[in-house]
Amino acid sequence: MPGGLLTDLYELNMAASYLCLGMSGPATFSLFARRLPAQRGFLIAAGLEDCLAFLESFAFTEADLSWLADSHGFTSADLAAFRELRFTGDVWAVPEGTAVFADEPFLEVTAPAAEAQLVETALLNHVTFQTSVATKAARCVLAAGDAQVIDFAFRRTQGIEAGLAVARAAAIAGFSATSNTEAARRYGLTAAGTMAHSFIEAFATEQAAFIAFARQFSGKTTFLVDTYDTERGIRAAIDVITALRLPDPVGVRLDSGDLAALAFLARRLLDQAGLQRARIFASGGLDEHAIAGLQDRGAPVDAYCVGTKMGVSADAPYLDSAYKLVQFADQPVMKLSEGKATLPGAKQVHRGASGDIIALRDEPPPPGHRELLRPVMLGGARTGPQESLAVARERCATSLAALPASALSLRDASPVSVAISPALGALRDGLASELASAPKE
Amino acid sequence: MPGGLLTDLYELNMAASYLCLGMSGPATFSLFARRLPAQRGFLIAAGLEDCLAFLESFAFTEADLSWLADSHGFTSADLAAFRELRFTGDVWAVPEGTAVFADEPFLEVTAPAAEAQLVETALLNHVTFQTSVATKAARCVLAAGDAQVIDFAFRRTQGIEAGLAVARAAAIAGFSATSNTEAARRYGLTAAGTMAHSFIEAFATEQAAFIAFARQFSGKTTFLVDTYDTERGIRAAIDVITALRLPDPVGVRLDSGDLAALAFLARRLLDQAGLQRARIFASGGLDEHAIAGLQDRGAPVDAYCVGTKMGVSADAPYLDSAYKLVQFADQPVMKLSEGKATLPGAKQVHRGASGDIIALRDEPPPPGHRELLRPVMLGGARTGPQESLAVARERCATSLAALPASALSLRDASPVSVAISPALGALRDGLASELASAPKE
Repeated sequence: MPGGLLTDLYELNMAASYLCLGMSGPATFSLFARRLPAQRGFLIAAGLEDCLAFLESFAFTEADLSWLADSHGFTSADLAAFRELRFTGDVWAVPEGTAVFADEPFLEVTAPAAEAQLVETALLNHVTFQTSVATKAARCVLAAGDAQVIDFAFRRTQGIEAGLAVARAAAIAGFSATSNTEAARRYGLTAAGTMAHSFIEAFATEQAAFIAFARQFSGKTTFLVDTYDTERGIRAAIDVITALRLPDPVGVRLDSGDLAALAFLARRLLDQAGLQRARIFASGGLDEHAIAGLQDRGAPVDAYCVGTKMGVSADAPYLDSAYKLVQFADQPVMKLSEGKATLPGAKQVHRGASGDIIALRDEPPPPGHRELLRPVMLGGARTGPQESLAVARERCATSLAALPASALSLRDASPVSVAISPALGALRDGLASELASAPKE
Repeated sequence: MPGGLLTDLYELNMAASYLCLGMSGPATFSLFARRLPAQRGFLIAAGLEDCLAFLESFAFTEADLSWLADSHGFTSADLAAFRELRFTGDVWAVPEGTAVFADEPFLEVTAPAAEAQLVETALLNHVTFQTSVATKAARCVLAAGDAQVIDFAFRRTQGIEAGLAVARAAAIAGFSATSNTEAARRYGLTAAGTMAHSFIEAFATEQAAFIAFARQFSGKTTFLVDTYDTERGIRAAIDVITALRLPDPVGVRLDSGDLAALAFLARRLLDQAGLQRARIFASGGLDEHAIAGLQDRGAPVDAYCVGTKMGVSADAPYLDSAYKLVQFADQPVMKLSEGKATLPGAKQVHRGASGDIIALRDEPPPPGHRELLRPVMLGGARTGPQESLAVARERCATSLAALPASALSLRDASPVSVAISPALGALRDGLASELASAPKE
């Protein structure tokens, strides 16, 4: 999709106004979350790659322009300006996989006002959605400890494209595999999966289904054992593994019932049959809390298959994200709306061992602090090659490992301290009192 | 995207098995929700059009096949079978916009087992997501009474494609317009939108911003009035409307604060200025409960702009949906897993004034009942032209108007009664006792 109409009508109205009035002075917009969703002590930044791809290809097609003229009366001058419009601005951003907190910019766009305005909707969409999911997925990985976590979400994500983005975000967060084959191909992920209940039901007996499957896929056979009765299913799987002398890896998947009790049972039966290396997969409505509950009971699960609740970030399916004008024509600006005041000026985040500082872009970091935002696009061109998922994944692991336990807690987490630099605080307070005393009415 | 890999790996494993074993006997799968999400007294069926488009174009590309061979060791016989595979089956479905309850099939697929299995993931995805959103949107429309409802969700839907599907689902549910211009073009919807806070901030004064905007867009000018101080903003809008003698429609949008109190204030100030016809728009984190609260207070809001909470169906971002084998090679089948037992056989839903009956496909409806599922695809071809959104929208309104108030309630709703026909009940009970006494182990 080319991009020009992947926006809200008001962005087009405003852009036309800016272009018509010659208001091409650079505007800086800051994209951030006003607060963390309930239970969350951190966010994992994701979505930047799709933002950059969108900005690179941003343009109006002739069909877009015809529709704007016919349906909304944009003038020929508007259309001429839109026809030439490309994204020519700069983007500073926190790289994917970084832990981020409330009010810290995920990214900042500086561009002629019309350009910066038109891309708002798509940038907010990618960052809000993918960060929500990467965060949820990271919580599942934290809960699972040494066990693996596998993405099973594709069937209930909010659209097909969403399913692909979920597999990618989960991989950044540390998932080891995905059931989604298109995502596996596209992003170079490991695809995983076994069989469904329907497969078992299509055969005269459970054992016949297992044998048929094992004959075809010897070498990576995980048997779904809960179609009729889980203990009988486990025993049938053991019989088939033993009779056909199936090579590793073999395993069983538990998809219903008391997963901890069944995992203990499966482990005992497998071990008694000499199948110590057979793996146990658990699935069925899992999220970070269910995984933590199973881990707390010591359930011998080797891999958790996590679906819908991660794929839609079920308890927090969006962020209170915003894309706000912070500077226009080199003047810092801010909004005072009730409960929605913004921090003016182009910014940087300084991360230190004892917490973060939100500062103005050109402030040097204090000793022991590093800068989170980097220039990723300058003059509409990327500053470097597309980052590999492995790098983002490694960054996520490192970023989480540096957080205190209080921020990693799955319930009642406390984010790390985020301070405002003195210079930014002074700018904010000065501008606020100026606006209050000499209101722009 | 061509479709072949838009699935889970296990579907491909199972399909390869069916094809290799010559198990081409027709399989019937039923797609339904096991239960309604909390607070919901109905679901509005949506997603069928995308399901049919997916089935029509289902095929593997050579790139898909190469990836399957290289990454997962599918044999050349598997690949040859996949290369020829198209969806050649039948689909019976409830049309979009119909109210549906737990256990009632949204659709049933009857096709050679491999085909029916491979399409599971995409069909579940489209129906689960779009039904969730259409249902949430319908609740917003019910709450708004005579006021209009407008889709503002695009910036925080779960992906760009999701934003388009949300605009469409909301239109089926009765929304009058969308901010999403690509969706408006694609689906023939009305696009709506005004200005953002950033536009106001880019001018020296609020009034200068209003004047610039009005000069460019006279004839459809709605002023966002809460950037600095809402009462001053309303007065500035009135001054500009009056001074420039702006033609109707004009209006103001309230986006923060006590929306009911501010709506009363705006109405009073507008009326005092002789602007009785100016409209009041309310936005900012609205959902059906917030709308109902404003309506209960008699707030003079003409249109509610509903965003994120509708667009991700925030309180119920997914359905407990399932796609289950109910018949194989002309034999009804069922699954007994704990808490997940299924109803065997190809089915129909009979809707009557006093409730619904889930019956076997070939049972005639009782007097006064009509059949909800229709054949929409036979032998892989649609049985008719693509349905217009207007038809689905009208069906949704009619379907909801026929429900009792208890099912329409926004909290603690009671779905209508859904019975099982005697023939279906007998089949289920017979099959369950057969499985229990002669387990398929």
